[in-house]
Amino acid sequence: MKALRFENNKLRLADVPLPHRSGEALVRMTAAGICNTDIEIVRGYADFRGTLGHEFVGVVADSPDRSQIGRRVVGEINTGCGQCGLCRANDPRHCPNRTALGIHGRDGAFAEYLSLPSQNLLIVPDGVSDHQAVFTEPLAAACEILDQVEINDSHRVAVIGDGKLGQLISRVIATVGCDLTLIGKHAGKLELAARAGIKTVGLDALDITPASRFDFVIEASGSASGLRLALDLVRPRGAVILKSTFHGAVELDTSRIVVNEISVIGSRCGRFENALRLLETGKVDVEPLIARDFKLADGVEAMAEAERPGTLKVLLTN
Amino acid sequence: MKALRFENNKLRLADVPLPHRSGEALVRMTAAGICNTDIEIVRGYADFRGTLGHEFVGVVADSPDRSQIGRRVVGEINTGCGQCGLCRANDPRHCPNRTALGIHGRDGAFAEYLSLPSQNLLIVPDGVSDHQAVFTEPLAAACEILDQVEINDSHRVAVIGDGKLGQLISRVIATVGCDLTLIGKHAGKLELAARAGIKTVGLDALDITPASRFDFVIEASGSASGLRLALDLVRPRGAVILKSTFHGAVELDTSRIVVNEISVIGSRCGRFENALRLLETGKVDVEPLIARDFKLADGVEAMAEAERPGTLKVLLTN
Repeated sequence: MKALRFENNKLRLADVPLPHRSGEALVRMTAAGICNTDIEIVRGYADFRGTLGHEFVGVVADSPDRSQIGRRVVGEINTGCGQCGLCRANDPRHCPNRTALGIHGRDGAFAEYLSLPSQNLLIVPDGVSDHQAVFTEPLAAACEILDQVEINDSHRVAVIGDGKLGQLISRVIATVGCDLTLIGKHAGKLELAARAGIKTVGLDALDITPASRFDFVIEASGSASGLRLALDLVRPRGAVILKSTFHGAVELDTSRIVVNEISVIGSRCGRFENALRLLETGKVDVEPLIARDFKLADGVEAMAEAERPGTLKVLLTN
Repeated sequence: MKALRFENNKLRLADVPLPHRSGEALVRMTAAGICNTDIEIVRGYADFRGTLGHEFVGVVADSPDRSQIGRRVVGEINTGCGQCGLCRANDPRHCPNRTALGIHGRDGAFAEYLSLPSQNLLIVPDGVSDHQAVFTEPLAAACEILDQVEINDSHRVAVIGDGKLGQLISRVIATVGCDLTLIGKHAGKLELAARAGIKTVGLDALDITPASRFDFVIEASGSASGLRLALDLVRPRGAVILKSTFHGAVELDTSRIVVNEISVIGSRCGRFENALRLLETGKVDVEPLIARDFKLADGVEAMAEAERPGTLKVLLTN
């Protein structure tokens, strides 16, 4: 089958055997989304070699759970060892021996087929299209914030970054009815958020005074400067939620965190159920975020397109 | 009066007028403690110029609250503007216009007298000696951790740093009955903690495996490497509490915080009431931490002694 692989420091379309792991389900990919993490992997993040891709929707071709065969599914990307304390405490997402689809120890979804344990798969409700369902994984990551901190309608919240992740996070956070501002530097993307009813401000028009600080600042810019800006924007005893993963280090004056008693909270993957519910109820509209569809065979070109500054979600389809 | 001042990049004993601010209390310093923050200020931290010192016990010489005159007191070091949202919400410790005794905008306690608003002063209980009471401020900073995160007897907790602050924090955290380990690199200091019933481990003997990770790691080493070590030691979804303030930046791979969903929580000053209670009830024994007493007139020498690696608490007395 065809697969878009990163090997020997090169991205290429390759012909590889079916990835069917013993005891797991085999899923025919219908659509897959290119995430910044995929782009960062090609830059050296996570030291991954193999088939990229972890955002997907597909149809089950084979599964030890026969009831799944032929169904449309999305899939939780982390698989735990099942034995360690974290797995036994129902947290395979943090198992030290976990694999992660297309990120760590397991070939990913930019291929005709992918393999995942059947218990990782969730049936996509009929009312949710493939083009919506492919956002389940990043939307779940956005939902994770609300599982970690209690944000309610009394709070002032800023999201830094008007890219794919920032757009999704803004839409999720807006559902709680708080006073939300999306901060970005691309007029077109800010406008896209504004059309979804989100208050936006350009980075250059940002007013930073003690009185204008936020209770929560969500860093989704994917850049090293984002955390420093977040620390400028958060009120004393407020929280900064870190969503960006990227290759490289950040230089930080940690005394600011101490003196202002700020909480910096790392936030990664979330529960797929929450994301599917937002899609099914129509509370979050993700389709305006799609920039372009490519065929899997044009995967190298699709990645180049996704890497272009300003591009929103690029999809691969089978 | 005599005062130990940092000015023109130099530490010196000076003769200065009484610091009696209008409407405030005047306190004759009995004993004052040298903190790492004082040492960091001399290295450039906080950009402070003036009389150093924020840990003290003294006797009220004058006060608009006449009932305080002649009483032994300790004092909350932060004074808010009284007008802003934070002050009105009873959080002057984070007022953007605050002064902080001997740290920001206000002469400190390494002097014959100091000035503070009368409402910042707390009467020292009779059973608490001056040599104990002088630890109220750093002990309150240690207590702050328990006001910020809920640590109970089911948790595994590590404290990094066997210096003054790490010693105090260990003693405070031990009172909750958790599984506590103090990590340091000075045999003598680890032994001092061991004598207080605290489990210790040398940095060189540290075993870092996924199974040995901690629920909470408290960083009190005062060094840039401490936060990186803390991130090695904390379990996924655990919390790192940052206590050290120092001059300079830390280079950090923030992706680790995101991927492991770690909370990094800045922690500064705490409530004096909690600290006085621990001293009064004898739950924390601070006197073994005193390295040496100096007269205020020998303040420059005292600071040099406090700066020597391995030195615990150095006191100045009047």
